[in-house]
Amino acid sequence: MLITFEGIEGSGKTTQIALLADHLKKKGRSIIQTREPGGTGFGEALRSVLLKKGFNVFPLPELLVFMAMRAQHIEEVILPALQDGSIVICDRFVDATYAYQGYGRKIDLGVIETLNRLVTRGIRPNLTILLNVSAERGLKRKAASAQMDRIEEEDISFHQKIKKAYEKLAREDPKRFFVVDGALKADAIHQIIREKVNNVLKSYGI
Amino acid sequence: MLITFEGIEGSGKTTQIALLADHLKKKGRSIIQTREPGGTGFGEALRSVLLKKGFNVFPLPELLVFMAMRAQHIEEVILPALQDGSIVICDRFVDATYAYQGYGRKIDLGVIETLNRLVTRGIRPNLTILLNVSAERGLKRKAASAQMDRIEEEDISFHQKIKKAYEKLAREDPKRFFVVDGALKADAIHQIIREKVNNVLKSYGI
Repeated sequence: MLITFEGIEGSGKTTQIALLADHLKKKGRSIIQTREPGGTGFGEALRSVLLKKGFNVFPLPELLVFMAMRAQHIEEVILPALQDGSIVICDRFVDATYAYQGYGRKIDLGVIETLNRLVTRGIRPNLTILLNVSAERGLKRKAASAQMDRIEEEDISFHQKIKKAYEKLAREDPKRFFVVDGALKADAIHQIIREKVNNVLKSYGI
Repeated sequence: MLITFEGIEGSGKTTQIALLADHLKKKGRSIIQTREPGGTGFGEALRSVLLKKGFNVFPLPELLVFMAMRAQHIEEVILPALQDGSIVICDRFVDATYAYQGYGRKIDLGVIETLNRLVTRGIRPNLTILLNVSAERGLKRKAASAQMDRIEEEDISFHQKIKKAYEKLAREDPKRFFVVDGALKADAIHQIIREKVNNVLKSYGI
């Protein structure tokens, strides 16, 4: 069982993942909580290079580093956890690449699909929760909490484009996506997600 | 005009590239001297992550990071230099990926070809000089000169496999490859390479 969270910067993924993981652990589930980009020692080291300011990184190399992190993450973390019967909760996964590198950086979607197919080894999320907030709200929340990195520093129109891209991806795959209004209070969002996840687990007989 | 140098660790590429660049500069040529993996600020940062000890890096992510470095290198350095009319001399290029990741790490050669095609944007070396030495000689020379990184630490049979792979690549593309016996004295090797390069430049009318 692979559950992924998607959304723009400041959409509240971190908070909601922590609440969901906590809830599931209390119910006695084995939970592996991880994130992309990163999720492995090698991946986190690559991530810090990728987010460093000062490099003029071209779109294709950026995409390839994201794919390298994903490939390592899948082999080292996700695949063993799934084989172990754990529930994997992942902060961003394949959809983020379509949203950021495809719709954001204008990389050919076919190239992204080819690379995703190469690295995922057939693994697809069973459920993808999209926390949908406006770019203004997301960036405001993010700016209040932390320093901005190279990608977060993009102007607001970039983040609006990403929000629209995520909405499009959700429309194209409504069975897998579950869209939640990220403007609600954190606890209300958690209740909605908790109910959905419990239903999905039940439907899989887990 | 793109000239690449290939060969196992300790084959003498660094010395020969410096001698050739020096010779061509003295003749008034515009020379861009670069290397893979790396060759750009972003690429060198990725390279240092890749060569760091302690990570259990899987073959596919390793390949994707090499390809990311290549993509950045081509966009930022090689393509502008070639468009400028410079002679680009590159320490390792596409063939190294077939040798190390393909024949060495057993990654499917078709996957490497797909990725090479994606990142090179049609650029192929006009001349590839293979400095051919035994793995024993190469590692002995390397060990004398520097600390070993994660890849250099592989045992001797790995480096023997790489040597054989390079010889195979050279046999498959004899027009592009020029194989030089790396056991000769540095100055003798330089004379052989210098004559070959001058002939190739003449044949291109450069």
